[in-house]
Amino acid sequence: MDFAARVRDSFGRQNAMALIGARLALVEAGRVEIALAYRDDLTQQKGYIHGGIVGMIADSACGYAAYSLMPADASPITVEYKINILHPARGALRARGEVVKAGRTLSVTRGDVFDEDGRLVATMQQTLMTLASTSDRREPA
Amino acid sequence: MDFAARVRDSFGRQNAMALIGARLALVEAGRVEIALAYRDDLTQQKGYIHGGIVGMIADSACGYAAYSLMPADASPITVEYKINILHPARGALRARGEVVKAGRTLSVTRGDVFDEDGRLVATMQQTLMTLASTSDRREPA
Amino acid sequence: MDFAARVRDSFGRQNAMALIGARLALVEAGRVEIALAYRDDLTQQKGYIHGGIVGMIADSACGYAAYSLMPADASPITVEYKINILHPARGALRARGEVVKAGRTLSVTRGDVFDEDGRLVATMQQTLMTLASTSDRREPA
Amino acid sequence: MDFAARVRDSFGRQNAMALIGARLALVEAGRVEIALAYRDDLTQQKGYIHGGIVGMIADSACGYAAYSLMPADASPITVEYKINILHPARGALRARGEVVKAGRTLSVTRGDVFDEDGRLVATMQQTLMTLASTSDRREPA
Repeated sequence: MDFAARVRDSFGRQNAMALIGARLALVEAGRVEIALAYRDDLTQQKGYIHGGIVGMIADSACGYAAYSLMPADASPITVEYKINILHPARGALRARGEVVKAGRTLSVTRGDVFDEDGRLVATMQQTLMTLASTSDRREPA
Repeated sequence: MDFAARVRDSFGRQNAMALIGARLALVEAGRVEIALAYRDDLTQQKGYIHGGIVGMIADSACGYAAYSLMPADASPITVEYKINILHPARGALRARGEVVKAGRTLSVTRGDVFDEDGRLVATMQQTLMTLASTSDRREPA
Repeated sequence: MDFAARVRDSFGRQNAMALIGARLALVEAGRVEIALAYRDDLTQQKGYIHGGIVGMIADSACGYAAYSLMPADASPITVEYKINILHPARGALRARGEVVKAGRTLSVTRGDVFDEDGRLVATMQQTLMTLASTSDRREPA
Repeated sequence: MDFAARVRDSFGRQNAMALIGARLALVEAGRVEIALAYRDDLTQQKGYIHGGIVGMIADSACGYAAYSLMPADASPITVEYKINILHPARGALRARGEVVKAGRTLSVTRGDVFDEDGRLVATMQQTLMTLASTSDRREPA
């Protein structure tokens, strides 16, 4: 599989992305976008999209941006991320993840989340580790 | 309402917490715990709880820990958070949020997420802002 | 004083910048650059510039980028920052701080530190608070 | 050399720590403290210790806490850190670094910086990488 097929295949196995209705909107080498439609069950107490949901799509977009540049037999894991919420998130969102540095062991990415009006609602800086020669699938039960 | 009632009331209006099946497990002044049962629809591609879901419950636990110390007519918003994923998260989780500093405008909290075996699977450092004299509810439509 | 004069004046009162030999290299509205010459007394145990020194110049560049957009009678304080060290820092460095969001109370900035070869050696995401109607000078003794 | 001797030896080769007058105050397995006396040349424009200096001593305390648990022939590098400044730092400071998780490749630490009155002025969360079978010294010129 080429990198785009690997990203799409792995994303399709992320049940949590299906739960919130997130979908892959763009897959390029080193850049991935995830789209999220507004749903009332994704909100926090004031009716905005929950900051944790915003973090989820940014985390996944960044992780897959890094994965797109990894060897085909490797698997990514999130080491850490930091996110600033810049504006309350209303309506549909789009998270864009981009690779800042693709290292052999560690990669660093940047994520930006935009609302329907193109306003930047959150920005993330993330670190991932490449697990070499490691399956990206569940271990057999 | 006292702080515990305010926290429980606000948490009950977080639809995103209901979506993932999170529940309030402890509410004390400056400390809140959130419990999350394992569900297959919360997982990432390898069958672990999605890092973004881990972030969601830590973000909420920390936010409500800070909220528990705020004036009754204030509303909290998350400014930013940083989370390290220490171990793949399997099984049921518990997120504990604690206030490190409760300021007039800004508060800083720490969050730790444990698995069923008591192992620390993630740790968070978060900044919140207190919106004084601001409703914690949705604006009327 | 206009913003550039205010930035230069405040920077000139940062004794810690003088200690490490950092100087202002660029001051624009929302963007500030700081240059640091290599010195052996700035290194860590392996002879690279100490990561904390890299953080210092990025922190200041970001802070002054935010300050350049603040009201003339306000003072900035750093709330928090997060920095990834991407490569060991050798030789002269240049830190560039840029404003991502200039809010009334909080601002978010991004900082990038480059070496002589133009290689990105560190990247920062920072949060600042605007203290309205507050002197940016020492209180009289 | 045992771990304490290795930490003291490596710290002694950090010229940047000598520049600011920082000294090792405690070395235990997984916990290191660094003391910093107040000096006017360490300040920012308002006379407080520069936030970057606060970050430097916390970064080093955390890094050496992790190093104390590493194999004797390994070398630590800072991957990233995030620091919240909780109060303006006046007077002498003490930074305490502690290991949260010592992994084979990555370690996570926490750092707290206290002032003379025992007040917490900053708190850090840091990620380090262990470079196996790598000298912690300068490469010969």
